[in-house]
This record gives sequence, structure tokens and C-alpha cells, in this order.
Amino acid sequence: MKHKIIDPWGSGLPEDYGKIIRDFGLDIFDSKLFPQPNRIMRRNVVFAGRDLKIISDAIKSKKKFYVLSGIMPSSEKIHLGTKNVIENIRYFQEHGAEACILVADLEAASTRGITLEEARKRALDFHIPAYIALGMNIKKTAFYFQSENREVMNKAYEFAKKITLNEFEAIYGNADPGKIMAAMTQVADILYPQFEERKPGIIPVGIDQDPHIRLARDIVRRLKDKKFFLPSSIYHKYTPSLNGDIKMSKSKPESCIELPEDIKSVKRKIKNALSGGRDTLEEHRRLGAVIEKDMVFELMKQHLVEDDKELDKIYNDYKSGKMTSGELKEIACGKMEEFMANFVKGIENARRHSSDLNLVKFK
Amino acid sequence: MKHKIIDPWGSGLPEDYGKIIRDFGLDIFDSKLFPQPNRIMRRNVVFAGRDLKIISDAIKSKKKFYVLSGIMPSSEKIHLGTKNVIENIRYFQEHGAEACILVADLEAASTRGITLEEARKRALDFHIPAYIALGMNIKKTAFYFQSENREVMNKAYEFAKKITLNEFEAIYGNADPGKIMAAMTQVADILYPQFEERKPGIIPVGIDQDPHIRLARDIVRRLKDKKFFLPSSIYHKYTPSLNGDIKMSKSKPESCIELPEDIKSVKRKIKNALSGGRDTLEEHRRLGAVIEKDMVFELMKQHLVEDDKELDKIYNDYKSGKMTSGELKEIACGKMEEFMANFVKGIENARRHSSDLNLVKFK
Repeated sequence: MKHKIIDPWGSGLPEDYGKIIRDFGLDIFDSKLFPQPNRIMRRNVVFAGRDLKIISDAIKSKKKFYVLSGIMPSSEKIHLGTKNVIENIRYFQEHGAEACILVADLEAASTRGITLEEARKRALDFHIPAYIALGMNIKKTAFYFQSENREVMNKAYEFAKKITLNEFEAIYGNADPGKIMAAMTQVADILYPQFEERKPGIIPVGIDQDPHIRLARDIVRRLKDKKFFLPSSIYHKYTPSLNGDIKMSKSKPESCIELPEDIKSVKRKIKNALSGGRDTLEEHRRLGAVIEKDMVFELMKQHLVEDDKELDKIYNDYKSGKMTSGELKEIACGKMEEFMANFVKGIENARRHSSDLNLVKFK
Repeated sequence: MKHKIIDPWGSGLPEDYGKIIRDFGLDIFDSKLFPQPNRIMRRNVVFAGRDLKIISDAIKSKKKFYVLSGIMPSSEKIHLGTKNVIENIRYFQEHGAEACILVADLEAASTRGITLEEARKRALDFHIPAYIALGMNIKKTAFYFQSENREVMNKAYEFAKKITLNEFEAIYGNADPGKIMAAMTQVADILYPQFEERKPGIIPVGIDQDPHIRLARDIVRRLKDKKFFLPSSIYHKYTPSLNGDIKMSKSKPESCIELPEDIKSVKRKIKNALSGGRDTLEEHRRLGAVIEKDMVFELMKQHLVEDDKELDKIYNDYKSGKMTSGELKEIACGKMEEFMANFVKGIENARRHSSDLNLVKFK
């Protein structure tokens, strides 16, 4: 069963999303479930989920539900890959979900060697404003710090009694005390919006975070009091690295676009990105681009072009050879420049309105 | 190395305290280290410790140090065995230690199936008043609830990263997520009085709690910032069961004296206790009692007779056969009646003065 194990803290990468769906027992994502699906839902970047029908029903019948995600405030920046999680949180917030975002300051402090104070400062200075710049509602999104949320830690303690070491190892591949505490805390975080009131919730995640979802669902099934809805989840593909690797990562800076990043540097990276253009112009005009290997088109699809018709036109022009790789990159650079300027402005704006932030206060 | 493992949650009983001292690398207790040693120190009920010199020095030079212990508020009563821990906490408090007692409500809730609210209520209604009735200073003893102490949980999270699963299993014999969380929380509890200020601390425990001490010491050694003194510890023998088993336990109610307990029931149990008296009066007068197997004398020694000369006289009279087993039991019953009446009065008194309690408030 080794192949079923994905380590949320490791760097193992899934090569085959179809296999993941089968192995983990996920449901293939169907964008028809949701009204006005967002860009990444429409374009199959979102590829799977668990128990999405219950969320779909909550949206359609305007019942209470929540969307929850976490911020790891260890770094000074995020990158484009993180943006897809935010797109989904934002989608559910805009469709009626109570949005709750935890700042994993405990995890950042224990795994990344920064203090809780530094983690807090980074979250307030950058990560939270960045989430708002990317579309989260500043007043309606509840942010909390793990280190302040006693109820979550108390529930983590309680939940830990519900599983054995063998069960933990079967989900995570291995178990060390630090991992166990982090995972139990994550499970309690996932259920936190239900502590006061039972209601459905959706957790948008990359597939590497699925073990936390499975553990949370296993634990909820074992609680006798039926206190919680099983959490639903929705999975998006990774934003690929500009060199064509499956996952954009800061460990390969030349293939990773950071948010924010100096636009000159971004443009240089885009110009060096893996292209689907042909070796000569003559060949390109004749055969058209190999779009599936073109990382700049992938950027447009995932992040830069909202309008489907506009994307279709680019697709057709590029695939037919009418548009060159250089022209595609020019368009991408222009759109990226606009996006990055708006992002930076959005962060500054969020910082100016920090008094509007909805930081959860604990007794 | 199996023999080195004592499970603090299990019922494995050490048969040989000398072997324990060797196997665990403890120091044999020397009552000369401490001024005015208490009854159980003088009488070798206290038998071992770790790093006691540092505590002795703190007492003699009037330096800051702390004594810490925990209350498990799952039951409605305690028993005589628990009293020995309290004797030692009280001794160090009376000799200059800041005393801190945590209420393990999280552990009670997760292992004993009661709610945090019930655990809190039991602690406030009974356990804390009982500790005060047994001599803890009502105003000077800081009591806190695990479920309210966020700093402890945050440190537990941090400390968990410092050990591996194999290391945990080597100390505890096995490891399940619930045990790991409980143990990490205990380690953080043990060090809590040092969070604000580094200082020596002593933890009075039964030998079954030694794994927590070892884990705490291992973790302190691994922290780079030398933030904490290694915690010292002091070990007392169990109060034996009235039937002669090594440890008094509520699971054998006829051999266990509860606090409080109806005095008629206590007297009946004392009269049925394992005796060192001989089969006939003639034989008893001639050979004297076998004191080492007499559980009533053990009760006198551990709990009922404060004055050493008085105990010596009883010892000599009983050993020589001058005092019969019946007479010994009569004395014990009388002393127990007085003790129990004072204990009940002490509890009532502590309840009346509950506004004097020093319950730690957390932000």
C-alpha cells in the first residue's frame, strides 16, 4: 500500500492525477455541481473532491456551511501555486460560506525555526494582506492564530485518543511525535468552525494535504456524539514549474514566480520558460504549438486569463501556429505585469485597512 | 531493555525498589540533604531522587525554586497513597519553593470519559480543597487547569519535534498518538514555572511517573537555548494495600482507604488488614510481631504517627510482643478517626475560603 501514501510534509509528487483519484477514493470533480464555477474549476485545474454534493446543496439552498484553509507564515513570500487554494476559498466565500483561515504559527515555529512572534508578524505584515489582495473579504474572513486557539488544542488532545499509532502510520507513512501533534492540531483546525454548531465545511487543498483530510474524516466517524459533519474537500492540480516539473517550488527559483516579485525578474523567467513553440518559425506556422507542454500557456490558463473566450482564442491561435511562442510570452508578460501591480497595490491597501481585519479573539 | 520500562498509565508494579534505583539511574535518597526532613523522608518512604543537591542548595541558600505536581480530577475521591505526594509538595512549599499544581483536566477528559466541565467541577469541589486540607497553603499554591494553559500546549507542540518515535517508545514502552500528546503536555507542565524565568524545580512523583521525568530531562538537554534547568525529582514508595500488595488501589476497595471515607468502613478495613501478629496470644508474647508484614504498622509509619519517639515505642512494644495486633489496630483506628475528622473539616474550611484560592488566570 506504499503507493497510497503521500507525505504532506515531504516532496513526493504525484505523476498521475487519475491514479490518485482511484487510489484515494476521491470523486472526479464535476464543475456542474457549482453555480458560476471559477476559472480553475472550469478548466479542470480543480480535479477531485470528497463529499462535494453536500456543499453544492448548501450553496443552492443557502444553508450554512464553511470554508477553511491555513496559512503557513514561515516564508516572506508566497508563490503562484498558493494562489489556487485562495481562488477556491474565495469562490466558496463568495457563494455563501463562512470563511475561516488559521495561521499555522505553531507549525511554523516548530518546523521552520522561527519564533511565534516572528510567525505572527509575518502573517500580519504579509500573508493575511496577500490573501485579501487575492480576493478574500477583509471583514468577513475570520483569521485565527493556532497558538491562541486553546479550544483547537484541547480538541487535538481529545482526538489523539481516537487513533492508534498503526492507523496514523497507515495514513502518513510514518509517525514522529512532532508530526502526530501537528496532524492532530490540523484535524482540530479543520473542524474548528463546527465546535459551536454542526455544519458542512469544505477544505480546499493540494493533494499533498489529503492525509489530514482522511485523518479528520476517520476521527469524525469515530466520535460517538455525531457532533461533526464529515469535512468535504476539493483538490486542485499543482501549478507546474516553469521548466515543466509538476510542481512550482521555491527550491527552483528560476522556474518559480513569487508573489510579489520584481516584474523584470518575472519577465525573464517567463521568457526562459519551457515552450511548446517549434524550433523554427516555418515549422511553427506549419505544425502549430505543442500546447500541452507549454508552461506559459499553462500560466495563462491557471492564472492570467479570466475570460474563457479570450483563452480559447489564444489557444486556437497558438495551436494553429498563427501566434508564436514569443508573442504568447509577450501577452503573458503584459498580463503578469498588470496582475503583479494589482497584487502589490492590494497588499498595501489591505495593510492600510488592517483595522477592518476580523482576527478571532479568544477568552 | 524491557525491564527498564514502567508504564505510567499501566498497572505494572515494581517489586524491588533497589533494582529500580539501579535500572533508572536514580540517586538513593539521603534525608541529610534536607533541613527538617518530613515524616516520609525520615522513614525511607522517600527512597530516591534525581538532582536533589541543586534543590537542597536552593533551600539552604534561599534561592528561588519551584515544586510542581498534578491533580487527576477524574475520581470523586483520592486515597491514602496520594497523600504521600502531597506531603512532599507541602514540604518543599514550606521550605521556600513556589508551589504549582496543575489540574490535568485534559487528560481526565480524554482518558476517563468525563467532560472538561465535570473535571473542572470535581477539582474545584474536591481535589483542590483536599490538597489544602492536607496542608498546601491556600493563598500561595498556584493552581491551573491544563485546558486553559495555552503556553503549556504551545510548548508541548514545540517539544514534540525534539524526539523521535523510537526514543519515545524506548522510554514509555509503546506509543500511541493519545499517549504522545499526553506525555508532551506533561513535559511542558513540568517546565511551566520556568517559562518566565529559569530556575530549579522539583517534581515529587511515584516511580510510575518517572518516564515523564526522563522525557522532560531528555528534551531539556536538547534545547539549544539552555532555557530550562533540568527538572529534579523525588520518589516515594507506594502506600501498600491493606492486604499486603505493593500498591494501594481503588480497584481493591476492601484494601484501600479512601479520602474521605466513612470511619466505620475504615475501621472495618483496618481490623481486616494483613497483620504481623502471631496466631495465638502466647506465641505473640513470646515471639513478638512480624512488623515488616504488618500493614497497620505501615499505615502508622507512613501516615498516622508524626512523632518518631512515639513510633519507636509502638515499634518496640509491638515487636517485643508487649502490644498485640488488636491493640495496634485500636490505636490506628483512633488515630485514623482523628485524621479523617480533621481532613473533612479541612475540606469544608477550604471550600469556605475558596475566594482565597490562587487560580492562575490566562490571557
